[in-house]
Amino acid sequence: MLNDLKHKVFEANLELVKRNLVIYTWGNVSAIDRTEELIVIKPSGVTYENMTPFDMVVVDLDGNVVDGHLNPSSDTLTHIELYKAFKEIGAIVHTHSTHAVAWAQACRPIPVYGTTHADHFYGPIPCTRVLTQQEVESAYEKETGKVIVDAMKDLDPMNIPGVLVGNHGPFAWGETPAKAVYNAVVLEEVARIAWISEQLGIKEPIPGYVLDKHFKRKHGKDAYYGQK
Amino acid sequence: MLNDLKHKVFEANLELVKRNLVIYTWGNVSAIDRTEELIVIKPSGVTYENMTPFDMVVVDLDGNVVDGHLNPSSDTLTHIELYKAFKEIGAIVHTHSTHAVAWAQACRPIPVYGTTHADHFYGPIPCTRVLTQQEVESAYEKETGKVIVDAMKDLDPMNIPGVLVGNHGPFAWGETPAKAVYNAVVLEEVARIAWISEQLGIKEPIPGYVLDKHFKRKHGKDAYYGQK
Amino acid sequence: MLNDLKHKVFEANLELVKRNLVIYTWGNVSAIDRTEELIVIKPSGVTYENMTPFDMVVVDLDGNVVDGHLNPSSDTLTHIELYKAFKEIGAIVHTHSTHAVAWAQACRPIPVYGTTHADHFYGPIPCTRVLTQQEVESAYEKETGKVIVDAMKDLDPMNIPGVLVGNHGPFAWGETPAKAVYNAVVLEEVARIAWISEQLGIKEPIPGYVLDKHFKRKHGKDAYYGQK
Amino acid sequence: MLNDLKHKVFEANLELVKRNLVIYTWGNVSAIDRTEELIVIKPSGVTYENMTPFDMVVVDLDGNVVDGHLNPSSDTLTHIELYKAFKEIGAIVHTHSTHAVAWAQACRPIPVYGTTHADHFYGPIPCTRVLTQQEVESAYEKETGKVIVDAMKDLDPMNIPGVLVGNHGPFAWGETPAKAVYNAVVLEEVARIAWISEQLGIKEPIPGYVLDKHFKRKHGKDAYYGQK
Repeated sequence: MLNDLKHKVFEANLELVKRNLVIYTWGNVSAIDRTEELIVIKPSGVTYENMTPFDMVVVDLDGNVVDGHLNPSSDTLTHIELYKAFKEIGAIVHTHSTHAVAWAQACRPIPVYGTTHADHFYGPIPCTRVLTQQEVESAYEKETGKVIVDAMKDLDPMNIPGVLVGNHGPFAWGETPAKAVYNAVVLEEVARIAWISEQLGIKEPIPGYVLDKHFKRKHGKDAYYGQK
Repeated sequence: MLNDLKHKVFEANLELVKRNLVIYTWGNVSAIDRTEELIVIKPSGVTYENMTPFDMVVVDLDGNVVDGHLNPSSDTLTHIELYKAFKEIGAIVHTHSTHAVAWAQACRPIPVYGTTHADHFYGPIPCTRVLTQQEVESAYEKETGKVIVDAMKDLDPMNIPGVLVGNHGPFAWGETPAKAVYNAVVLEEVARIAWISEQLGIKEPIPGYVLDKHFKRKHGKDAYYGQK
Repeated sequence: MLNDLKHKVFEANLELVKRNLVIYTWGNVSAIDRTEELIVIKPSGVTYENMTPFDMVVVDLDGNVVDGHLNPSSDTLTHIELYKAFKEIGAIVHTHSTHAVAWAQACRPIPVYGTTHADHFYGPIPCTRVLTQQEVESAYEKETGKVIVDAMKDLDPMNIPGVLVGNHGPFAWGETPAKAVYNAVVLEEVARIAWISEQLGIKEPIPGYVLDKHFKRKHGKDAYYGQK
Repeated sequence: MLNDLKHKVFEANLELVKRNLVIYTWGNVSAIDRTEELIVIKPSGVTYENMTPFDMVVVDLDGNVVDGHLNPSSDTLTHIELYKAFKEIGAIVHTHSTHAVAWAQACRPIPVYGTTHADHFYGPIPCTRVLTQQEVESAYEKETGKVIVDAMKDLDPMNIPGVLVGNHGPFAWGETPAKAVYNAVVLEEVARIAWISEQLGIKEPIPGYVLDKHFKRKHGKDAYYGQK
């Protein structure tokens, strides 16, 4: 079932290790088949070295396992909330990458301090509020998805392809598993550079017209970066 | 004698190098056979490249060498104090990993700033007081073990699987050599992220209910992370 | 056409990856044939792993493609401005290397804090002003070149072989593609050390006579570093 | 001539690259034959990849080349001053390693903040004063050696096996080329940890009795670390 997507999700999970975004089992990638309304996701707590494409788990939009011999990621219900709310996205990545987590722990959105950020995120990278005790104790993973959706209110998820969950860490997404991993790598690097920039005394975000120019060089109908 | 344990301790020592926790001979792993009341530990000052499983040293709980042709780690008496006090643990790791040492040198416990910490340590990572001159000059390694035990007073060593020794560096432990190394890697990464978080302006630890939720997702009878 | 230069530009682009100055497609190298008045430059948005020397694009000094099947780097018009203004240079490198970008985002020139800097840059590494809205919206890449040339006013580009573009990142150059990459690596390392030095409480740049001595040990007619 | 020492100096130079202390040609190792009063040193500005043991240069204590087809390191006269003043040392290493250079640029000695430092350096790592204009312009490399010797006044070079040259970077030494490289690696790691410790709010150096204990565990007649 969904063999092609299983392979892509598997490869994207391994890419997290290669790009130094995760150690041990500290991350997961999923992807959705929008026609079938089925999600392929990493199994919970399985190390990347021992994993094969056939260990990927298929779940429906209620979180029921419909294919696979392992438990799905414990973050599955968070992923599902995002797939329901953001119809354009095809894949989601969650990691505990160092600098993105540091910003998440500080409960701070990452300001747009330069063009490296503006090339990929069309505005600050939001940080969710901390969940209430009620939310944590009732349906933690689902509520995590909901605060992410709330933090993205009025934002286009294709223009801001990632967020920080306060106290926790980053989620990123994209049209494909490979694109979602790319955005997770960008988020980590942007977080790292922004930290150093602040120590050097940065005072304010870049002007809006620079943000516009850089984002639109790479995205949308007038983009002229790359090959056709 | 204890060949299986010697191999595991040997492998765990090499893992410290692979995980970038030690350079040269700056770390050691031991494990205990609770039935025999014997400890297998790295030999003192031997480089990892030249070491074989048969260089591991076996000592009793008084620190006497009962098997092996080399001197045991100079930290052996510290390990022994921990094995005596913490009956549940099966292995101990000591390193001079960069960020954990930085917190130890600052004589500061590491606050619970996020879920990466809460997934593994059920509360702040304690830092021992600095030893007195009397303690240092009489029985330094044994007294180091005692201040660790003292810093862990009222704490469950299986819930807080590591500490910082003030002015010195981290000790971590677990049920097996592999688990102890894992906890040492976590401690280093948590120390690194906490440092960056503070520079970004973090103000306070995470709420207790988030700590509870994350630790108990992964530990204890209601854990639901990973495979059964 | 210009096969030898294509190979050199290709190799220099790969060197950026090897030296950890770029991830994905975040950098580009070009070189100029001063006799032919033609520039060889990396194609836009092509990943380094899939690139061959024959993917390099040849453009004239107006930015017209005269050889090649791909679009040239979107920064091509910036490179052209620099080749027009700095007659001595033979190659240009643009990256988003972490620490150089951090200084660029802080809109700060890098002071000469030590001999590592003085060995390679004969004075502070300038940072351009931020472009105006008019400049960004009219001819962004060309205007970027112009503010670089403006920041280098009264400076010898062979003595200061790189700058920071405010809010953006570094450009470096040299007589050859290999030399330009070398200067980009130096700029990144100097930026990194200067950041840490400031955190340790550095107060002022090195004395002018130390700057003179170190730069002139390595450059100019009285240089005595290296082999003849 | 001195083939065995040439091989050791060659290997030690390569070790600098392997240990991430140098990029390009930014470092050098020398060793002395005390019987012959001859020094073997890296050639100036030659990259490590292209170097062979037979490229090492032999100079006498006046700096005259007595064997070799290349120019010796431009820092040769600094090395010679140290060999003359510190009779016990057999080898010297100079690098531009990142964190040691950062402290040198801040013109600060590195305080003894923990046992990692105390295991290897029996006190703060000194930082020389900045050279005067007269010293820089007359005999720069020789005067650099002299300010190092001056900074080590009243210190035993075997107990403090390295210093920082203000505005410049570290020199370290030892009985053999391998030991000198080891001390250069330690100096860099100690510098890195001390930087982070200060950011975490360290207030004062460790007590003298901890310094005594740790240094003497590893050095001198009562040392008990390692194998006999």
